[in-house]
Amino acid sequence: MDRSEVPMGDDTTIFGKILDGQIPCHRVYEDEHTLAFLDIFPLSPGHTLVIPKQRVAALHELSDESAAAIGRVLPRIARAILRATGATAYNVLQNNGAAAHQAVFHVHFHIIPRHGDAGLGLGWHPTALGAEAAAELRSRIADEIET
Amino acid sequence: MDRSEVPMGDDTTIFGKILDGQIPCHRVYEDEHTLAFLDIFPLSPGHTLVIPKQRVAALHELSDESAAAIGRVLPRIARAILRATGATAYNVLQNNGAAAHQAVFHVHFHIIPRHGDAGLGLGWHPTALGAEAAAELRSRIADEIET
Repeated sequence: MDRSEVPMGDDTTIFGKILDGQIPCHRVYEDEHTLAFLDIFPLSPGHTLVIPKQRVAALHELSDESAAAIGRVLPRIARAILRATGATAYNVLQNNGAAAHQAVFHVHFHIIPRHGDAGLGLGWHPTALGAEAAAELRSRIADEIET
Repeated sequence: MDRSEVPMGDDTTIFGKILDGQIPCHRVYEDEHTLAFLDIFPLSPGHTLVIPKQRVAALHELSDESAAAIGRVLPRIARAILRATGATAYNVLQNNGAAAHQAVFHVHFHIIPRHGDAGLGLGWHPTALGAEAAAELRSRIADEIET
C-alpha cells in the first residue's frame, strides 16, 4: 500500500505532543523505544496505552527494532496492570486506519483489563474459510512476506 | 496474579497440535520463535493468527525473547496481508482469559483486515478518568513494573 494512504504520525498528534513533553500524561513505564501511560478515557480501571517513540501512524510502518521493543514490554506492562488492579483477564488491541476505529494517528496498543462488565466489547461475525480460497490466500500472503 | 488462574497453553490446545504438526494449518510465515497462519473462521479475508512457539496461555506469561519476536514480525505480516488483500485498515487483537473472549489457551494475535463492513466489531464505552484516581492508579501500576 501507498504510505500516503494512512496519515503519518508526527508531533502534531496528541501522542507526539506527549513524547515532546508539551502535554502531560499519567506515565507508567518508559524506555529508549517505548512509553506507556493511562488512557484518560478508559474502558475499565487500568486501561493503558503503549506507544513507540518512532512517530508513525500504523503498525505496518514500524521498524523491526521499534516493533520488537513494543512486543517485549507488552507482557511486562500487562503483569503490572494485573497485579495493580486485581484483574485476571484483559484484551490487547491496536487499530490501524480510521475505518478500523483508529482515532490518534500514532501507533498505540491498548491494554484493557476486564472487570466484570467493564472492558472491551467485541463484535465477532466469522465466516467459514473454504479450502480453495484458503490455499490461494495463504500463498498470496506468504509470497508478500519480506525475507 | 496466580498463574493457576489462567489455563496453561500446552500441546493439548489446537495451536499446540498445529505446532506439533498433528493438524495442518494454512501457514503464511514461520521462524524460530513464531508461526503465522490463516484463521479458519475469519472475520474478513486475510484474517491471520500469529502465535509464539512458547506454549503459554496468556501474554503476561511470555518470555521477553518470545514477546520481542512476536512484536517484530507483526508489522512484517501486516504489510504482507495489506499487499495481498488490498486492505488499507486493520485491527490487531490479542485476548487473555475466557472473560476477555479467549477461546484457545495458547497466546495468539489476530490481524484482522477491514474490508467495508467485514472485520472486527468494537464496543467502546469509555468513562472519564479523574485526576486523583489517575494519580493513584498510575503510581500503583508503575510500582509493579519489573526492572
